[in-house]
Amino acid sequence: MNSVAELQDFIINGHKHYMPHMSIDAAIFGYHDHQLKILLSSYKALDGYCLPGGYIRRTETLDEAANRIVAERTSLTDLYLQQYKTFGDPDRIKWNEMDFENFSKKLELKYIKDSWLMDQTISIGYYALTDFSLVTPQADVMSDFCAWFNINEVPPLLFDHDQMVKDSLHALRMQLYYYPIAEKLLPAKFTLTEIHAVYETLLDKKLDIRNFPKKLVFLGLIKKLNEKRNIGPHRAPFLYKFDKKKYTKALETGTTLT
Amino acid sequence: MNSVAELQDFIINGHKHYMPHMSIDAAIFGYHDHQLKILLSSYKALDGYCLPGGYIRRTETLDEAANRIVAERTSLTDLYLQQYKTFGDPDRIKWNEMDFENFSKKLELKYIKDSWLMDQTISIGYYALTDFSLVTPQADVMSDFCAWFNINEVPPLLFDHDQMVKDSLHALRMQLYYYPIAEKLLPAKFTLTEIHAVYETLLDKKLDIRNFPKKLVFLGLIKKLNEKRNIGPHRAPFLYKFDKKKYTKALETGTTLT
Repeated sequence: MNSVAELQDFIINGHKHYMPHMSIDAAIFGYHDHQLKILLSSYKALDGYCLPGGYIRRTETLDEAANRIVAERTSLTDLYLQQYKTFGDPDRIKWNEMDFENFSKKLELKYIKDSWLMDQTISIGYYALTDFSLVTPQADVMSDFCAWFNINEVPPLLFDHDQMVKDSLHALRMQLYYYPIAEKLLPAKFTLTEIHAVYETLLDKKLDIRNFPKKLVFLGLIKKLNEKRNIGPHRAPFLYKFDKKKYTKALETGTTLT
Repeated sequence: MNSVAELQDFIINGHKHYMPHMSIDAAIFGYHDHQLKILLSSYKALDGYCLPGGYIRRTETLDEAANRIVAERTSLTDLYLQQYKTFGDPDRIKWNEMDFENFSKKLELKYIKDSWLMDQTISIGYYALTDFSLVTPQADVMSDFCAWFNINEVPPLLFDHDQMVKDSLHALRMQLYYYPIAEKLLPAKFTLTEIHAVYETLLDKKLDIRNFPKKLVFLGLIKKLNEKRNIGPHRAPFLYKFDKKKYTKALETGTTLT
């Protein structure tokens, strides 16, 4: 099936395979070398940018759907992915039958009145974090563009996606002290300088290099190893790793703060 | 309309007013005097307990729907309410047409085949926290029972509601250090002994009475007042209050840990 035929079929029959009234939108953050970016997409025949998203197959759990949607754009299946909030204001999408008719016309599709895609929709927000240097963004059947934007250069987005970026970034930053969010951005054994750079960039603020690691150790997220890395004459900093056992237990029992 | 006619109408016409394919389930926690309880409900003609829940009107935001659903059971409109997770496993509810036929028969309702209530459903989880001594639980049109259970005496629940209790309690405990969750359980100005009792009970563990308040002050959640309460000869502990300005700012900028 070519992409027009595929899209036409999706508009007519999609609700047989996907849950109507709901979507997933993903804030996919990318870190590399002191830089934080976010993946933005644009829909075919619509002006403006938005977060990549998709629909939930009737046979999928939400996590499975989110993993698939993120993998479709990033080709990655092993990134940090977390549900953070569901958005359900009835006014969240201002998109009506006339817009849909124009959209259909522009793409040379048959206009289908009362398509399931025009249903009132809630959206389940996920955020993901990966190393952007590993990812070549992919557009999909609904979109014609997908690319990394610097986090501080995000243009105003469509629908309620500005709020999604704000809330997802907030969730990521809150959880940074409790979940091993940065695990895949660092080598298995890392120096304090390395994790410090990642945390400063993700939090977008300066962190005291002496107090910061104490807090992470105190909270049970990382532990110091009896091992050093030689990086030059007289320079051999200690190595650390994420303390999987400790934070898993802490998360199960509630909080890491005693 | 009597309650049978109301329920019959809801089964036939509910989807015109409510969003199909989704519900809200609320873990309503109640604290009072060192005790933590949770509100459980049971559906008419179904064996077993579950969390109280309801559907989302097409005109409501999710928060409005959750507030209404919680108010219907507790008569309270001013309690701490927080969305924490959406549950969407296609197998989360094992309830089929035959169950629905039996349910209809038991309640002397006309059995409606393919009712919207039998649609595959995701559920948006909210938790709430209040003082249980203020609440007289109310059943509703779908349920015939609603009462407080001690948190350590919760029986196995229907559907995926065991997981909901686990996850909501986890979210509450994680957020206890960042949000003024306990604000409505305490007087506006409280002693350390008072907040200590609330936190120990909510976290279900012993907290060091000297370190615990330091952490809350350090995190910016509460602040010490230059004011004492006289509670007996030679006994006048300092008073504290939630530092609304500080935690609001901290929440906006991401995290309170510097």
